Amino acid sequence: MRHLIDFGDLSRQEWDELYARASGIMDDQGKYLDTCRGKVMASLFYEPSTRTNFSFQTAMLRLGGTVFGFADPSSSSAAKGESLKDTIKMVSGYADVVVMRTPWEGAAKAASLYSNVPVVNAGDGGHMHPTQTTADLTTMTRLLGGVDGLAVGLCGDLKNGRTVHSLIKAMAKFENIRFFLISPRELAVPGYMRAFMRENDMRFTEVTGLEAVIPQLDVLYMTRIQRERFVDPLEYERNKGIYVLTRRKLERAKEKMLVMHPLPRVDEIAVDVDDDPRAAYFQQARYGMFARMALLADLANQPRLERTEAVEIGRAPVCRNPRCITQTEDYLPPLVKKTGGVECCAFCDAALE
Amino acid sequence: MRHLIDFGDLSRQEWDELYARASGIMDDQGKYLDTCRGKVMASLFYEPSTRTNFSFQTAMLRLGGTVFGFADPSSSSAAKGESLKDTIKMVSGYADVVVMRTPWEGAAKAASLYSNVPVVNAGDGGHMHPTQTTADLTTMTRLLGGVDGLAVGLCGDLKNGRTVHSLIKAMAKFENIRFFLISPRELAVPGYMRAFMRENDMRFTEVTGLEAVIPQLDVLYMTRIQRERFVDPLEYERNKGIYVLTRRKLERAKEKMLVMHPLPRVDEIAVDVDDDPRAAYFQQARYGMFARMALLADLANQPRLERTEAVEIGRAPVCRNPRCITQTEDYLPPLVKKTGGVECCAFCDAALE
Amino acid sequence: MRHLIDFGDLSRQEWDELYARASGIMDDQGKYLDTCRGKVMASLFYEPSTRTNFSFQTAMLRLGGTVFGFADPSSSSAAKGESLKDTIKMVSGYADVVVMRTPWEGAAKAASLYSNVPVVNAGDGGHMHPTQTTADLTTMTRLLGGVDGLAVGLCGDLKNGRTVHSLIKAMAKFENIRFFLISPRELAVPGYMRAFMRENDMRFTEVTGLEAVIPQLDVLYMTRIQRERFVDPLEYERNKGIYVLTRRKLERAKEKMLVMHPLPRVDEIAVDVDDDPRAAYFQQARYGMFARMALLADLANQPRLERTEAVEIGRAPVCRNPRCITQTEDYLPPLVKKTGGVECCAFCDAALE
Repeated sequence: MRHLIDFGDLSRQEWDELYARASGIMDDQGKYLDTCRGKVMASLFYEPSTRTNFSFQTAMLRLGGTVFGFADPSSSSAAKGESLKDTIKMVSGYADVVVMRTPWEGAAKAASLYSNVPVVNAGDGGHMHPTQTTADLTTMTRLLGGVDGLAVGLCGDLKNGRTVHSLIKAMAKFENIRFFLISPRELAVPGYMRAFMRENDMRFTEVTGLEAVIPQLDVLYMTRIQRERFVDPLEYERNKGIYVLTRRKLERAKEKMLVMHPLPRVDEIAVDVDDDPRAAYFQQARYGMFARMALLADLANQPRLERTEAVEIGRAPVCRNPRCITQTEDYLPPLVKKTGGVECCAFCDAALE
Repeated sequence: MRHLIDFGDLSRQEWDELYARASGIMDDQGKYLDTCRGKVMASLFYEPSTRTNFSFQTAMLRLGGTVFGFADPSSSSAAKGESLKDTIKMVSGYADVVVMRTPWEGAAKAASLYSNVPVVNAGDGGHMHPTQTTADLTTMTRLLGGVDGLAVGLCGDLKNGRTVHSLIKAMAKFENIRFFLISPRELAVPGYMRAFMRENDMRFTEVTGLEAVIPQLDVLYMTRIQRERFVDPLEYERNKGIYVLTRRKLERAKEKMLVMHPLPRVDEIAVDVDDDPRAAYFQQARYGMFARMALLADLANQPRLERTEAVEIGRAPVCRNPRCITQTEDYLPPLVKKTGGVECCAFCDAALE
Repeated sequence: MRHLIDFGDLSRQEWDELYARASGIMDDQGKYLDTCRGKVMASLFYEPSTRTNFSFQTAMLRLGGTVFGFADPSSSSAAKGESLKDTIKMVSGYADVVVMRTPWEGAAKAASLYSNVPVVNAGDGGHMHPTQTTADLTTMTRLLGGVDGLAVGLCGDLKNGRTVHSLIKAMAKFENIRFFLISPRELAVPGYMRAFMRENDMRFTEVTGLEAVIPQLDVLYMTRIQRERFVDPLEYERNKGIYVLTRRKLERAKEKMLVMHPLPRVDEIAVDVDDDPRAAYFQQARYGMFARMALLADLANQPRLERTEAVEIGRAPVCRNPRCITQTEDYLPPLVKKTGGVECCAFCDAALE
């Protein structure tokens, strides 16, 4: 692996190696104090994301590496007035690995074409956020011994959640997963995700209530339901309590079940759950740091390419997605890929018309 | 000591040990280059304080440790939308020690209840700022050989100054201190501070002029007088010159007297004083860094608590102080402590009604 | 060299030593991993300059040193309310070297009077930016074997460009330089720069077209032409294409010619030039980092001055330049120097009236 743009880029074997390294770090951090000595990470956050930013920074620092970059849009405005390509050429001249978060879909892929060093996607709009998925899978593997065979409840807004969709796709790499999809009907998983699960022989059950299925779960993955997602605000008021996890609802759960959440939470998990031994969401954040350490230990130590290959110069975007990076960076090449027989933009994955 | 929330938490013996370590660092910095190797400090500044922030950061860096965090309210807005508890659970999963500055009184105490690692209060509103006091005492001890027996002039606004009140309280740990309290009558020390000094057998003399007492002082601690503090602006104009230190006024001072100031100054010390050997305020800032090194060398190396104890969940704040952290973080427990027989909020120290 | 305020401060021998160190670093970075171990750099950017800031930061980090400071005006507002002198006294108490960028001409010089540690000018308004010049000369020397004897085309706005003027002045230290000054007549080099070149026996040819002279050049240094610089916007429209470098125009250039640019570019170099082997502007940015490493390796390791010399206190500015630092910092001494027989402000170099 040269870059991490999409979790789908990883083979099962590459994932197993990544987890083994993360696990080794958790067992003995002292052995990794100099793993990235002399290496420098660029941290380019074109939109704020304190949690992801802190997790990457501390991951690099704990490997003996160092960090520079910007943390929010006001600072990054300083980097405006030049193309993404020019920024990446500059930054990858200073750094050994580039971590970037942007509101533009496909931006990390675009950066990887021009970078002299590996690029990590720390979230590109609503598109991908692969290191959240590595955090999730690391948590399950570390605390439950593995991912194969788990019964996973996904609860909340399953229609709009990037985290949930990424997790479902990633779990196709594992054997014998069973999903319980717990959401109001308005916020059920989209049809293409259902199709994906069927194609990959993943079993799933869709329900509207949490309490009935909780005893069957090995993992309960909570997500936030936003009032704005409902057409009818009254519908929101009627529903919201159903999807709030409380200590009382936990009573019927398995003793070893994990409660997970990508954080930040608002009120979908009551504060009294925090002290239950099944509450794994704060550990999940910490395990995300270890997973990022495992990733950076590999990528920041890869050899630098002094000259990158010439890239075709585009003339006009082929993609119509208004949030795609090709809309604003007009020199990008017209890259197309096939997904399930459909031609898609190779940056943002939107189907071409 | 697990956390440093209030200088009063330190016993005289703990202070002596802390100073001995600070002094050892000043004598031979080279011995401390790896003291915090592999350790990471979170620096959470919910309000800007460049000087304190830089002092803590450089302290950690000079011990071979590393730093992440945010420096001002606009960045920290990224951390909003979640409770202080959740932020601290996240951050203390990434860090080995947490330094925090907030506008909310009692916030550092609140953070310490949930943190897996030590918490240092770098100022919580008008409440406490214990590392300023360690900087002050380190300066006196280093330059004068000790604090016991000193004649200390406190000059300026003694009514509103957090720094001055903290210093008076801290000096109760020492023997045979004599204060000269130099201020306009409108800005004299509050009655409860006078009561505190009497209870602790500290001698003090209140005067309105600086020049008459200057020959008696071992330390002259200057603070700023703000025009806004005066009811009558004319009174300010009549008074301000009296409390400005000039080279001429210094002529009658002892040869070894120290001029101190918490900085930043505005015009309460004339620029021509800077080159006088008695001017100690810039050294005082530097000694503050060494004192913070001594503190972090201890705290950042303390073992992490994987699970923190369950904390009672509050229902409604018992404290009425509108600047108290319990006003906005409603899950905080209703902790009460007795101070001189009076029930006080255990977060902000305000008396309960 | 104690401070780097102006490239003119360096003798030819000091430059040769600086380059030799930069070159040694490029040949074997591994030997320099601990050169600044335990040393801390203050990075004070009173105006944003992402590229310069990143270059200095990564230079220090790659030497094993560490960095603190602020990156933009909103953060630095926190440092306001005190004089530059007080800020520098504080910061130079925490740091081993101070790098500063300001909008005020002469600010780095002013800082150097009060600093306990070396000061580097990272740009002071339109005045000086000496480390850009070190980056430029390092690039030429590394890629062409030396600077003596080069034919250098300077193309674009030669009237207003600080970078170009600094480069011309710096090249007076070398032998047998020939300049081709390529610009619209409205934006030709100022008369005093022509006088400078004549006094220093530097040959130069002024032309308005790029294509005719390109075959003679060893270096083509491109700069941006801003529409706002033209009195007549139509004149801009008629001219702009002439000064845009394209792959086609490159066809007649020498095979080893370097295309340089201080970056960021807007559209004065077409994207299709980037993959030509003569395109050196991204390498130039990277070489700037190595040149800064060579500089910091020296300055950050110089002994600290515990007490700085007393500096005369000014009463009123002698300089009339409204952008000069003496206009706002009224305690600065009335320093004057002679340049070519004319009395000039020793901070901003403006002629006194």
